[in-house]
Amino acid sequence: MKKISLMGATGSIGIQTLDILRSNPESFNLVAFSAGRNIGLARKIIEEFKPAFVSMQEKEDAEKLRSEYPGITFSYGEEGLSGTATHEQAEIVLNAVVGSVGLKPTLEAIKCGKTIALANKETLVTAGHLVMSAAKMKGVSLLPVDSEHSAIFQCLQGENDKNIERLIITASGGSFRDRTREELADVAVEDALNHPNWSMGAKITIDSATMMNKGLEVIEAHWLFSLPYEKISVLLHRESIIHSMVEFHDSSIIAQLGSPDMRVPIQYALTYPDRMPLESAKRLNLAEAGKLHFQEMDFERFRCLQLAYEAGREGGSAPTVLNAANEIAVAAFLDGRIRFLEIDDLVERALETHSLIKEPDLEAILETDKRTRQYVQSLLA
Amino acid sequence: MKKISLMGATGSIGIQTLDILRSNPESFNLVAFSAGRNIGLARKIIEEFKPAFVSMQEKEDAEKLRSEYPGITFSYGEEGLSGTATHEQAEIVLNAVVGSVGLKPTLEAIKCGKTIALANKETLVTAGHLVMSAAKMKGVSLLPVDSEHSAIFQCLQGENDKNIERLIITASGGSFRDRTREELADVAVEDALNHPNWSMGAKITIDSATMMNKGLEVIEAHWLFSLPYEKISVLLHRESIIHSMVEFHDSSIIAQLGSPDMRVPIQYALTYPDRMPLESAKRLNLAEAGKLHFQEMDFERFRCLQLAYEAGREGGSAPTVLNAANEIAVAAFLDGRIRFLEIDDLVERALETHSLIKEPDLEAILETDKRTRQYVQSLLA
Repeated sequence: MKKISLMGATGSIGIQTLDILRSNPESFNLVAFSAGRNIGLARKIIEEFKPAFVSMQEKEDAEKLRSEYPGITFSYGEEGLSGTATHEQAEIVLNAVVGSVGLKPTLEAIKCGKTIALANKETLVTAGHLVMSAAKMKGVSLLPVDSEHSAIFQCLQGENDKNIERLIITASGGSFRDRTREELADVAVEDALNHPNWSMGAKITIDSATMMNKGLEVIEAHWLFSLPYEKISVLLHRESIIHSMVEFHDSSIIAQLGSPDMRVPIQYALTYPDRMPLESAKRLNLAEAGKLHFQEMDFERFRCLQLAYEAGREGGSAPTVLNAANEIAVAAFLDGRIRFLEIDDLVERALETHSLIKEPDLEAILETDKRTRQYVQSLLA
Repeated sequence: MKKISLMGATGSIGIQTLDILRSNPESFNLVAFSAGRNIGLARKIIEEFKPAFVSMQEKEDAEKLRSEYPGITFSYGEEGLSGTATHEQAEIVLNAVVGSVGLKPTLEAIKCGKTIALANKETLVTAGHLVMSAAKMKGVSLLPVDSEHSAIFQCLQGENDKNIERLIITASGGSFRDRTREELADVAVEDALNHPNWSMGAKITIDSATMMNKGLEVIEAHWLFSLPYEKISVLLHRESIIHSMVEFHDSSIIAQLGSPDMRVPIQYALTYPDRMPLESAKRLNLAEAGKLHFQEMDFERFRCLQLAYEAGREGGSAPTVLNAANEIAVAAFLDGRIRFLEIDDLVERALETHSLIKEPDLEAILETDKRTRQYVQSLLA
């Protein structure tokens, strides 16, 4: 029986994680979770899983639930996330909160020696150097939940890292993969939100269309697998069936494939190094798929990917700027305040303006994040 | 430094094995080898690798070489193969001899506790039950050299066998994959020998065209990975880029890919569980390949594959009959004595006529092999 603490239980990854816990009550026990503002869903999770600790985003929600469930400890906000991440019973902390708020609790969970199942992008993108050295020092495992990183992680089982020639991260190309850069000038928000393979939140769907999503994944892979950027490549693969690959120096490539289903990487992180049946997952039928397509990545077409590689190579606070500027730019696009290609422009301007901090500590990262947001907002005003 | 004994040094696999040993003199030492009738090539190998023991197929060749190289021990024929397989210095025995003559020395090498790198099909097809139980008893590793089995073996590293849902062996479809059964009636030997992806010997190229090759691989996989036949499937994949796959019960599929190059599986068997660079191997460029195709296998079209599954499920001496009948039938086709589709017919008749031996010992296997050959020859007379 593995004891799980789930940060971000009411989001898309959180809900799918609960689905796995629900199907395997003999294997997993939810001891703590954090939720956003959906108090109704939080209530359902409490009644079904009976955790010992619950954190809500807002104080008033926590207080309301406290009066309803006297046997459970409630908390809220930053302190609540901290409590979720470090709950004494938890063995695995699955971090599925969105945004830089997920960073500090990850570091706290590592300090407590918890195994980390990581779905929060900001943790590695903005603080990879802090997180990896902390994890190494405590001997803590960092298990990827993202489908691409999980694929690479699965491909690396039983292999020796010294033999890796490169990682090949696949990219569907997003909603606009068949359009030229010129054709992107006037795309509408609704078009951008229509992802061909995965059903995801608005922000990440736009990140797929700009390829910033893949850029952030490249930076995460750099930290997660301790590889230089020249050993991490991106390949367009429209079907999203090969989730990623590893090429070894003997020319052999190991790939992980499957129908798109986030429960597979989530469950793998929870069962690692073992696997468990996932009966309800759709089996991949390659004969039915018929063909898989592959295409070279066009870095001029997908400028965000180029910017991400540059920020990654620059290191220090640059990836924090990349990520924060992108968040504000994407929100502005979704609000109809800027056009699609202006996302790239804003990110690029933020990176150009920023004064690099080489080895930022947690405080400097959070400060850089905040300042970058303010700067990009000021450009929008 | 691993000490290698190479059975079948002058054949296609043998020559590619020597290429790997040549490139890595600090890692491998050839202590013994066996050769066929190519005494010129045997001489070159002796002078380059300076082994302690050499076996030739013919007595006169062994005697001739003995007079030329007084410091080396020479032997010949069956005894010579035995000596190669059990040479006291050898740690790994790579068995690349063709035909049922490879069976007995494999069993002897296992008895001596050697690690076996196996390229001889007959060993597992005809005596899988004997070989696997002997290997288990002696705690000996059986490493596949065939590209499909090596792919599966690579995909299984770091995995738990209990989690396997099925193996997916890929098949290029051979020279005639785009023809209907009707269109196969009058195909010429030259057409059959024109394999689209791999450059191989005549026998195996015909076996690719009839899909018997895949059938024999299914039987080998059954023994090598201890899986029932219903967990072993075959998928048409014309590019031969995905060499095979493993599906796990969580729906995740791990695949091994690469440009067709037999040196990759040979080297993997020699370096296992590690890998070594193979600089000269052509790197797979999936963007350049552009598309990978997959298609359901048609068992009526490829009757030999159906016959192989049936013989495998029947077990006992049936696979020996399948293999021996096929060898004689293919030789007859290559000699222009029968038509292409008569290969299936002859194999089927041999299987129908044969009285099954449930647990044949080595002697019974060799006797069945011999009798089947005589029987099919009698049908051709």
